[in-house]
Amino acid sequence: MSSNDNHSSPRAAAPRRRVQVPTVTIAHGGGGSAMRDLVEDVFVGAFGDGGAPLEDQARLPMADLLARGDRLAFTTDSFVVHPLEFPGGDIGKLAVCGTVNDLSVGGAVPVALSCAVVIEEGLEVETLRRIARSIAATAEAAGVRVVTGDTKVVARGACDRLFINTSGVGVIRQGLELGIANARPGDAVIINGPLGDHGAAILAARGELAIDAPVASDCAPLNGLIAALLAAVPGTRLLRDATRGGLAAVLNEMAEASRVGVRLDEDAIPVRAEVRGFCELLGLDPLYLGNEGVAVAVVPADRADAALAALHAHPLGAMAARIGTVTDERPGRVVMDTPFGGTRMVDLLVGDPLPRIC
Amino acid sequence: MSSNDNHSSPRAAAPRRRVQVPTVTIAHGGGGSAMRDLVEDVFVGAFGDGGAPLEDQARLPMADLLARGDRLAFTTDSFVVHPLEFPGGDIGKLAVCGTVNDLSVGGAVPVALSCAVVIEEGLEVETLRRIARSIAATAEAAGVRVVTGDTKVVARGACDRLFINTSGVGVIRQGLELGIANARPGDAVIINGPLGDHGAAILAARGELAIDAPVASDCAPLNGLIAALLAAVPGTRLLRDATRGGLAAVLNEMAEASRVGVRLDEDAIPVRAEVRGFCELLGLDPLYLGNEGVAVAVVPADRADAALAALHAHPLGAMAARIGTVTDERPGRVVMDTPFGGTRMVDLLVGDPLPRIC
Repeated sequence: MSSNDNHSSPRAAAPRRRVQVPTVTIAHGGGGSAMRDLVEDVFVGAFGDGGAPLEDQARLPMADLLARGDRLAFTTDSFVVHPLEFPGGDIGKLAVCGTVNDLSVGGAVPVALSCAVVIEEGLEVETLRRIARSIAATAEAAGVRVVTGDTKVVARGACDRLFINTSGVGVIRQGLELGIANARPGDAVIINGPLGDHGAAILAARGELAIDAPVASDCAPLNGLIAALLAAVPGTRLLRDATRGGLAAVLNEMAEASRVGVRLDEDAIPVRAEVRGFCELLGLDPLYLGNEGVAVAVVPADRADAALAALHAHPLGAMAARIGTVTDERPGRVVMDTPFGGTRMVDLLVGDPLPRIC
Repeated sequence: MSSNDNHSSPRAAAPRRRVQVPTVTIAHGGGGSAMRDLVEDVFVGAFGDGGAPLEDQARLPMADLLARGDRLAFTTDSFVVHPLEFPGGDIGKLAVCGTVNDLSVGGAVPVALSCAVVIEEGLEVETLRRIARSIAATAEAAGVRVVTGDTKVVARGACDRLFINTSGVGVIRQGLELGIANARPGDAVIINGPLGDHGAAILAARGELAIDAPVASDCAPLNGLIAALLAAVPGTRLLRDATRGGLAAVLNEMAEASRVGVRLDEDAIPVRAEVRGFCELLGLDPLYLGNEGVAVAVVPADRADAALAALHAHPLGAMAARIGTVTDERPGRVVMDTPFGGTRMVDLLVGDPLPRIC
């Protein structure tokens, strides 16, 4: 909002300002020269100045957008993960992937992101620089630009070190209609990778357990994988990323919105041995653990093999599997066939077993 | 990110879910059924379901956007104001106005907003409902829609009750080129209303002073006022809202970016008597206090009267005044003629004298 916090440099030619103190202070959020130092050092340092010095908004030529599709997609997500850094990622990588993935599962090609930070006084500037570089590197890997931002600083105790909001705009090409209500009986349910890596990695990284889990978060931008899938199977019914609430939440919502049942095959669901062991020790269920690199795809049954082939050919889809089928039995319900010949209901939980994983 | 937190209802026909407890719990942020209760009760209750049940993104037809302009504007802002409610507004009204105004001062007509909340466990659900209604009412007054959202809950002590991020998209009509670097010597500097109301109202509302200030925040969506100004003076050079850092920050940035000087006339700057008195008691300077309903406009000198007439005709511009002139003296500097015949420098401060005002 303040006129000089758009994460872009006021003086292209001048040397970049630097923060000379080790930790962020209240003055760094105050709209004055200290904030300019912080923004130039940390954010312009990582993202570049985007060519729009000091403007409060990014401007995107509509003709460029129109050339790529007929609908603009717009989404937002806040990230409050604890701890800020964990095996496989950090809050910055997570913030880019989360919004890129939200756009992608709706069928949009991500174009531009915003990045707004709320910083607790006392956060190490070097931590912030590291996270900003991670944001920049992840955005580059995903082929999107961080085009606008905001910086707020709150007093010690008023937030937990750092929260990040990313919002994103993308473009959906003409004719592509993905939607949570589109599943039809007979469709195949497919996921691109194993469940629970992110939830397990975050829980282990908190260091509150006497268990060491050699698990890294699956946090990754899925737009490339999804583009490959949609190119192979343009008739894909719907896509979702299985974040908070896990696979169980996505499938329950789909079952309700599409008025269909879902039948899962537990044996077919990929879960890493270390995550399975971790979950057994702690009484957790991988179906409910949050993921940050798992897309759920529903495709017509006769396109399931084509979908799997497209996913297997992508680095993020090596463990892709068909895990179930959409049915006309018990609409709104998800059931799972267990390896022992039984069946169990997979309900929506009240909350998430692990808070603050994203 | 989670598939069911898009502030939209999963079941148009079913009765809306309600939260049955008085305060927000961690489960309300967990991607399960408790979160759906909260989102349906509070956000769908206030905003409606936007016709996109359960999607993670809003979709806007590009043709509608293209009909209104040739560039898409995109901006973001987080709000951490303390206290959440204050005379003249609350964090929800502030969050809508802040982003509407950031779009508007860039020349964009605001089209759609996102709204992402980070809630501290223990916040009263009724407070949240009240703030959501305020968001909805302010958005309606501004003629924009809240189209997508996100809900996170953090443990007690991990944030200060409630933070809100709003991002916004808007459209800039062809030919309109506002920019902080566009001021030219001779231009008139105009503001639409008195300085310091917001900063003074927030400080007084904190209740930490033995002074009672009968001041309400100026928090207001400025898009209508700005549309009227741009219709009257299409050649307006630039607009800015004078938020964090106050008028002083805006003018210093403009002076630097445009490589011009600014000469202010202290006598001409509107400040309410009660704000002036409040500032004198506390040793504050209204030039540095944040505002949430003050736009700074720079127009060619021969259009100053037309600009003032357009502002005076709008309810938010009754006290509009020409407060200074752009000069070619001392580029990058802002000076002010005082009523006693003297001159003083108006520098950029290091921080804001009042943190967490927005």
